[in-house]
Amino acid sequence: MDITNYMHTIGRQARAAARAMARADGATRNRALLLIAAAIERDADRLRAANARDLDAARDNGLAPALLERLALSDKAITTMVDGLRQIVALPDPVGEMSNLKFRPSGIQVGQMRVPLGVIGIIYEARPNVTVDAAGLCIKSGNAAILRGGSEAIHCNRALAALVAEGLRGAGLPEQGVQVVDSVDRAAVGVLITMPEYVDVIVPRGGKGLIERLMREATVPMIKHLDGICHVYIDGKADIAKALPIAFNAKTHRYGTCNTMETLLVARDIAPTVLPQLAALYAAKEVELRADAQALALLDGYPRLAAATEDDWRAEYLAPILAVKVVDGIDAAIDHINTYSSKHTDAIVTEDYSDALRFLREVDSASVMVNASTRFADGFEYGLGAEIGISNDKLHARGPVGLEGLTSLKYVVFGHGEVRT
Amino acid sequence: MDITNYMHTIGRQARAAARAMARADGATRNRALLLIAAAIERDADRLRAANARDLDAARDNGLAPALLERLALSDKAITTMVDGLRQIVALPDPVGEMSNLKFRPSGIQVGQMRVPLGVIGIIYEARPNVTVDAAGLCIKSGNAAILRGGSEAIHCNRALAALVAEGLRGAGLPEQGVQVVDSVDRAAVGVLITMPEYVDVIVPRGGKGLIERLMREATVPMIKHLDGICHVYIDGKADIAKALPIAFNAKTHRYGTCNTMETLLVARDIAPTVLPQLAALYAAKEVELRADAQALALLDGYPRLAAATEDDWRAEYLAPILAVKVVDGIDAAIDHINTYSSKHTDAIVTEDYSDALRFLREVDSASVMVNASTRFADGFEYGLGAEIGISNDKLHARGPVGLEGLTSLKYVVFGHGEVRT
Repeated sequence: MDITNYMHTIGRQARAAARAMARADGATRNRALLLIAAAIERDADRLRAANARDLDAARDNGLAPALLERLALSDKAITTMVDGLRQIVALPDPVGEMSNLKFRPSGIQVGQMRVPLGVIGIIYEARPNVTVDAAGLCIKSGNAAILRGGSEAIHCNRALAALVAEGLRGAGLPEQGVQVVDSVDRAAVGVLITMPEYVDVIVPRGGKGLIERLMREATVPMIKHLDGICHVYIDGKADIAKALPIAFNAKTHRYGTCNTMETLLVARDIAPTVLPQLAALYAAKEVELRADAQALALLDGYPRLAAATEDDWRAEYLAPILAVKVVDGIDAAIDHINTYSSKHTDAIVTEDYSDALRFLREVDSASVMVNASTRFADGFEYGLGAEIGISNDKLHARGPVGLEGLTSLKYVVFGHGEVRT
Repeated sequence: MDITNYMHTIGRQARAAARAMARADGATRNRALLLIAAAIERDADRLRAANARDLDAARDNGLAPALLERLALSDKAITTMVDGLRQIVALPDPVGEMSNLKFRPSGIQVGQMRVPLGVIGIIYEARPNVTVDAAGLCIKSGNAAILRGGSEAIHCNRALAALVAEGLRGAGLPEQGVQVVDSVDRAAVGVLITMPEYVDVIVPRGGKGLIERLMREATVPMIKHLDGICHVYIDGKADIAKALPIAFNAKTHRYGTCNTMETLLVARDIAPTVLPQLAALYAAKEVELRADAQALALLDGYPRLAAATEDDWRAEYLAPILAVKVVDGIDAAIDHINTYSSKHTDAIVTEDYSDALRFLREVDSASVMVNASTRFADGFEYGLGAEIGISNDKLHARGPVGLEGLTSLKYVVFGHGEVRT
């Protein structure tokens, strides 16, 4: 069977299974999740063996160490997957929830019901834990899923797919409720993102190159984020005792994450006080600073200092590098952010009430924060229980996407025989 | 200036104006709406004169009578536009509303804020009233708008655009907050739907041909509906005193609307009772019935009767024609609807509690109703105050789209100096 036929078959099966997944009650969906968790615990040895085959092949193919680390299924990773499934079980059932049922002058009562989106396609790198996390979130939210993980994880993903199928079957749900694409053909992705008749939304998780390709080619809507160019603005009225740890944490807690600060903005009034103190903190972590003219002067003598260019304001370094700019005040800060931010997460540090409210209101990003590190932009930290991804889009869902993002609201009408006159 | 440059200029201006629109407080946006309403009342004679030019040209070009009717700006239409603006003023301000602000274990407080989408592009037929309705909804929701109405209405739309700009200016908002595309070049639409850098969402209002073209070409997300193949299912446990008026109203109240019933499903038990009585009602309206084999037998002798083909289950007649099918019961009804419905609006008539809940839950349509006419699927009837369109999509907004559909939720974090550990 060629890859197009294969993917269309997967799609048809997913569409059919989606009806049964949506119809199932919450107890049934939770039962499937618990059965999958138990099966993973039972078969941990087999999973490690499958993972070892993937790792051997990946090492032979010279996969980069960082990617090998993501591919590896450690004992801790298995425990985290299993715990993750049980945490999803404990979350409230989002499906079928009704809200705002109001009577109208005509006599009908109108409200909304939360319902699954249908079929979710998830495209991700060679990280076996994502297979289980994504399956768990889709099952809990009453959706069918088509999972396409990086080909380096194929043996482990196959083993996990069998356990997910076993759990679905055990709960009386269709095995096709979650399908793992069992092909390393890269063309599978191209088909998956162009079959809107079978797939309702694509959630791509991967590097910028993948996302840009999908944006050009996809005809299925996506919940995606392209990059994380996050800002911290230290206002003239900032409490320095808050500003220093926030600006330090937002940059250095982890360099490779999308909610890491990439540009620091500092109000002119406070820059002479705050920049030298921050420099001392960054120096200990060997952070390179790319500064505008005013900041350069204040950072004179810093060991890793360079003049910022226009490119620096648009850079997602994902590395111990930080762009630094002195701005006149909140207007200039908001203007810079709304021009250069990737609309992911931006924070202000201030004790000024009006500046705080203006920043919250006027910065057009998925997460906007006052006096907190940008690193908090995360489904777990926000209390969503789990996240399928982070959205930089403006429609449907912004920021961390949990179970609610995998559902939408339809209208329900309770009538008593009303007709329109 | 060629049309691409012209549209990109419009787009750039809209993007710049969108910031000011989003920043403006509710009182300012309401003031603009009231100024526009007053200007329309003041200039009613000039608007009628501009409309007369459009009508003369349209008659010369042989525009169909139904389209001429939509193009005409009667005294009543002007009053309705003005009243519509004042009703929008009276709606609660959706922008900046914060909800669900909860403390997290880390100490941060996380919630969501409703914010404008940014720039809305609206493509519609030659109906001048849509220019004002759409401008009103976009201003109220803090968005900038680019309006592209049918070229036959160009003189009237120009006159209205000047009044909208006057109102924006009078309230201290940028005139470019609402721009009417002042070109009859059809290529303008092609540019508008492929400039995601300037436009956040397209709302197309028009016939199926237009929507299908946009679906093929658009790279900007759309809030759209393609067609309305709506069903009424008369259950075996239906109250006939409710079923007859609902099935009659859903078909015959208006033939050309998207929430009109196009297929009637009747449970086998009740079909011998209900179909002959319904036939008597439909006969008075000269409705043609396209029936499956079982329904054909029960409708024997009906003057406008034909055998249904597969095409009839997929037909949006928008005419006094109705497809009729006898089904075994609720399972078959849900199955038929989830196969053939356009996911717009479907209704069950029943007194059975469990069947009612199953239908609400399992029918995958934007509006699902019990014991009410499908004709109620409408922004005004639902209490949204006004509607910009109806969505058949599953992401973002389903069903009638009001002010909330022109906004989305971003996360806001109130911190106290928290960092991630």
